[in-house]
Amino acid sequence: MGHVGRTIDWADGTVVIVDQCALPAEHRLLRLATVDELIGAIQRLAVRGAPALGAAGALGVALAAHRHGADTAAVHADAGRLATARPTAVNLRWGVERALTKLPGGAEAVLAEALAMLDEDERVNREASAHAARLLLGTCARRPLRLLTHCNTGRLATVDWGTALGVVRHLHAEGELEYVLADETRPLLQGARLTAWELAEEAIPYRLLPDAAAAAAMARGLVDGVVVGADRIAANGDTANKIGTYGLALAAARHGLPFVVVAPSSTVDASLPDGGAIVIEERAPEEVTHVAGNPVAPKDAAVFNPAFDVTPVDLITAVVTEHGVVAGTAR
Amino acid sequence: MGHVGRTIDWADGTVVIVDQCALPAEHRLLRLATVDELIGAIQRLAVRGAPALGAAGALGVALAAHRHGADTAAVHADAGRLATARPTAVNLRWGVERALTKLPGGAEAVLAEALAMLDEDERVNREASAHAARLLLGTCARRPLRLLTHCNTGRLATVDWGTALGVVRHLHAEGELEYVLADETRPLLQGARLTAWELAEEAIPYRLLPDAAAAAAMARGLVDGVVVGADRIAANGDTANKIGTYGLALAAARHGLPFVVVAPSSTVDASLPDGGAIVIEERAPEEVTHVAGNPVAPKDAAVFNPAFDVTPVDLITAVVTEHGVVAGTAR
Repeated sequence: MGHVGRTIDWADGTVVIVDQCALPAEHRLLRLATVDELIGAIQRLAVRGAPALGAAGALGVALAAHRHGADTAAVHADAGRLATARPTAVNLRWGVERALTKLPGGAEAVLAEALAMLDEDERVNREASAHAARLLLGTCARRPLRLLTHCNTGRLATVDWGTALGVVRHLHAEGELEYVLADETRPLLQGARLTAWELAEEAIPYRLLPDAAAAAAMARGLVDGVVVGADRIAANGDTANKIGTYGLALAAARHGLPFVVVAPSSTVDASLPDGGAIVIEERAPEEVTHVAGNPVAPKDAAVFNPAFDVTPVDLITAVVTEHGVVAGTAR
Repeated sequence: MGHVGRTIDWADGTVVIVDQCALPAEHRLLRLATVDELIGAIQRLAVRGAPALGAAGALGVALAAHRHGADTAAVHADAGRLATARPTAVNLRWGVERALTKLPGGAEAVLAEALAMLDEDERVNREASAHAARLLLGTCARRPLRLLTHCNTGRLATVDWGTALGVVRHLHAEGELEYVLADETRPLLQGARLTAWELAEEAIPYRLLPDAAAAAAMARGLVDGVVVGADRIAANGDTANKIGTYGLALAAARHGLPFVVVAPSSTVDASLPDGGAIVIEERAPEEVTHVAGNPVAPKDAAVFNPAFDVTPVDLITAVVTEHGVVAGTAR
């Protein structure tokens, strides 16, 4: 088993991930043999991105099932810790719970379900991003398109292909893309480290920019539309995504630009009526006070470091999943 | 001559500046003996901030006048290069031109004018920030106030005291300030390196945040008002300021929060009817692709790195100078 190039996969009884903490300096794989190792990798963001976390949840249950054999209580204990390793992306819990439904069939049944979910992730993200690409082509008059995106929503955020960055791939393949403006995405610089790396690897034209320059890019007429991913989508379409997404949506609205959220339907949390109830993870101050291990602020500076914000659906043109437009002002 | 604690001053025939590239790790002074050394310091942002640049322009002419004696052509040549060392802050050219008017009186007359301008900078910024503090106290019901600011507008951006951060000082002194949220201000992190350092030095409560988290802070109800400085203000009140200011104004408008620009009247460029004609400096890509000398993006990544953006006056509650409210929706 194990496809070359997948961000997360199963091989030789372990979960294999691309170590996203090492990019762009180094492309290396990590082999995770226990659920604790997997939780550690999730918490330090060596594997991140809502769809990839769904896959991690499912593969983690397979890991536990293989390790603990008939001791299903131990599998459930591992699964519980795994499901809560990070609070915001609903996909993690979804992946854990779906894989657990196969536990009565044994470890191989769990693994088969997890691997099916990996295949499905690539398929649904290709479909969702194809829907969103068609929507943008139908909305924007200018050709080729100039898109702005935030954080990393490419194959590194999914099993393969990507969500918002999948839209970029579709349009680039069709000759309909002029360039991508990629927000660097402080504090952890997923845009600079991961999105720029993916785009460079595929020779898709891009420019990197500070997050705070995105509104100016729109004001200068350099952007035709904004595409982002999602970590949790409430029933009404309110969307939690990487910190900074809300500000982008405000700027897009000011400039009359389409603002499109692209995600697999596993990111929708129908149990939440709106975004007010989404739990937002607050991360360590060192992510802001240090860059690549070097201090950039006074010692012991207090920090406000939420990992996500919530964009109200009134600012979202379309929330697009593999089922098409499921929410937004264009619906 | 030379007051302890001034960001820029004259001593022993040189211009003495606090080296802002070395903060917060080290507080050191640089002695600049030639206009070329001063231009180098301005261009690498060892001295920055529109009011401080006005002082640098005036002291630079004094330096040239002392060096070149009766050769006024050489003084004018130095002055011309100095006035265009950075394009956006109008104060630099203003400082140069005002000091040059005294050149017929000789080098000591130029120096006397420059030193008078330094004293005046502190006085007008105290006055402007006192006006803005009263405006905020009259606008916001909550006590004590919780303000959000961007970049550095403190004494390091001026000769002393500060503009937007001067408002913070006034309110703190009066017991009317709960805390400041200080945007880190990528790419050069003036908020993390300089504003946090100034606030820590005066024991004013603050939290540092990624620029992209400011809108989320407003959405969570953590902010009562936003105060920023300015690099150039057009006749209608459109304001060029550090990149990211425009996005903050959009978020403040969404949340009904006062958005106040504080600057000396030397920052107003009455020759420009609106912000469309303000020249925006584009800075080196390495400011974005590297942090503290370390690469954070793929090699040769293309970058969009404007140093400033323009906030339209319809998003500004008040532009406040030493003369009071001179533009904005509250006028």
